[in-house]
Amino acid sequence: MLVTGASGFIGRQTLAPLVSAGFDVHAIGHAAEHDAEGVRWHRGDLLSPDFRRAVIEAVAPTHLLHAAWTLTPGRYLSSADNLDWLAASVLLLRQFAEQGGRRALCVGTCFEYDLHAGVCDEATTPCKPATLYATAKHSLYRVSEAYAGSAGLSLAWARPFFLYGPHEHPRRLVSSIVRALLLGERAPCSHGRQVRDFLHVSDLGEALAVLAGSEVTGAVNVASGLGVAVGDIALGIARRLGREDLLDIGAVPVPADDPPLVVADVTRMTDRTGWRARRSLDQGLDETIEWWRSAIAKPA
Amino acid sequence: MLVTGASGFIGRQTLAPLVSAGFDVHAIGHAAEHDAEGVRWHRGDLLSPDFRRAVIEAVAPTHLLHAAWTLTPGRYLSSADNLDWLAASVLLLRQFAEQGGRRALCVGTCFEYDLHAGVCDEATTPCKPATLYATAKHSLYRVSEAYAGSAGLSLAWARPFFLYGPHEHPRRLVSSIVRALLLGERAPCSHGRQVRDFLHVSDLGEALAVLAGSEVTGAVNVASGLGVAVGDIALGIARRLGREDLLDIGAVPVPADDPPLVVADVTRMTDRTGWRARRSLDQGLDETIEWWRSAIAKPA
Repeated sequence: MLVTGASGFIGRQTLAPLVSAGFDVHAIGHAAEHDAEGVRWHRGDLLSPDFRRAVIEAVAPTHLLHAAWTLTPGRYLSSADNLDWLAASVLLLRQFAEQGGRRALCVGTCFEYDLHAGVCDEATTPCKPATLYATAKHSLYRVSEAYAGSAGLSLAWARPFFLYGPHEHPRRLVSSIVRALLLGERAPCSHGRQVRDFLHVSDLGEALAVLAGSEVTGAVNVASGLGVAVGDIALGIARRLGREDLLDIGAVPVPADDPPLVVADVTRMTDRTGWRARRSLDQGLDETIEWWRSAIAKPA
Repeated sequence: MLVTGASGFIGRQTLAPLVSAGFDVHAIGHAAEHDAEGVRWHRGDLLSPDFRRAVIEAVAPTHLLHAAWTLTPGRYLSSADNLDWLAASVLLLRQFAEQGGRRALCVGTCFEYDLHAGVCDEATTPCKPATLYATAKHSLYRVSEAYAGSAGLSLAWARPFFLYGPHEHPRRLVSSIVRALLLGERAPCSHGRQVRDFLHVSDLGEALAVLAGSEVTGAVNVASGLGVAVGDIALGIARRLGREDLLDIGAVPVPADDPPLVVADVTRMTDRTGWRARRSLDQGLDETIEWWRSAIAKPA
């Protein structure tokens, strides 16, 4: 099992579950630290053709979990780096299949869907990516599926929705509020009425490990299946920390086309793999606050 | 103006019209011969990152006409090489834009459309690519459009339909029949009732030069706009050569899902650029037969 993006927010959460599931795990990443035991690391740049060739030849993996992509907040939605990641991903997939790869799981995004079409179902919700990021991911999905069909590769395409948890980039929703309130700073928020489907990233990591080891093919939503108003999450965090006074609801404007509801239908994932999220949102927020408390307390 | 695939069936037909239109034409190709005057050639492999970087840096083109792709008959529809061409194309486009490129024209395909949805219109006919080739091309279109939007690039996407003319691969429809009958061999054909939109490749070359020099953006059908039964083309060739006896109509089976009609609505191209095909099908077939006659007569 070769995992790309293995030091990233999502990829790092797949390692321990994959090891537990009995996979011989090889991880591509750039981090100096690593948490999971029994993982062999390959440090390098997946955008480099030479590195890709070398690692695929060295590992000759039968399974691939491709989580690497460009995800710098504030930049990734329209960054030209999306082109590089699309190119690297299709070439990686070809190299993987031609070196004996049999099963690949790639990480897509809920932003492939038309987010104004209600609860997102893999089979019936139209795809209508609105950013370069989502377009590049969706193009990778379409091309990978067509390639898998002709190359005899088993391919699954996971679509995560909204995430939170340890190691989240500090500019994202949950992390930014938790950090601000822990530091006693004001936390500017939007009106908060948008309903979103939030999953703890550790639950996503477990789900991806289950999916990678299954025979399910095609697009699969990996989410909680539950909608929660963004404002309720902010309030939940503030109440836990006793700092409702620092929440600045309504301070951040919301784009006119912001979809009111983005929630996954998770029937396919649960029916086909039996997976369900282990954490409730309450448990997940508790854990996340504790993680940030230690992270902030640590000397830089 | 940088032209890729310039020694190919389509690309070579764009060179003279581009020179006539006043462009300073740089051509990427692999052919030893070249017909067009005033063209500077850059020989190399567009799949090589080093070659792409070198040629874009050396030429620093303001315009790009990207016609290169893998098109080996019998293989290209499902070839893994489509992944390499998608990757090379998105990276080329990024390099082009970042080196000062302002306007790009890429060559798509009518096979991006749902070919069972009637006459193909850019705005209303759904896209539903059914092969790896068409999926890769359509993905390039989607990603290029999204990238052009964020990078301030003017991008047009030409969709040719069915083609014939000089230098066509000898295994394709018109070329295979003309060659067989000129050589006195039997020409096995399908039932011939499929209606297709055929354009002489020289007319396509002229159209692409017009489109590259225009400000039209987005997808544009480049075709005759006229439907003709494939059997009537075969018969037209046979009558010209007095060899109707060699046509074996019905000998080649047709796939069950073969679309009965594939014809372009060319309103967008004609309205926006004024272009119209110069040759009728009769003139085009006459020219093509003459070309094959000389090509076959030449010593190998």
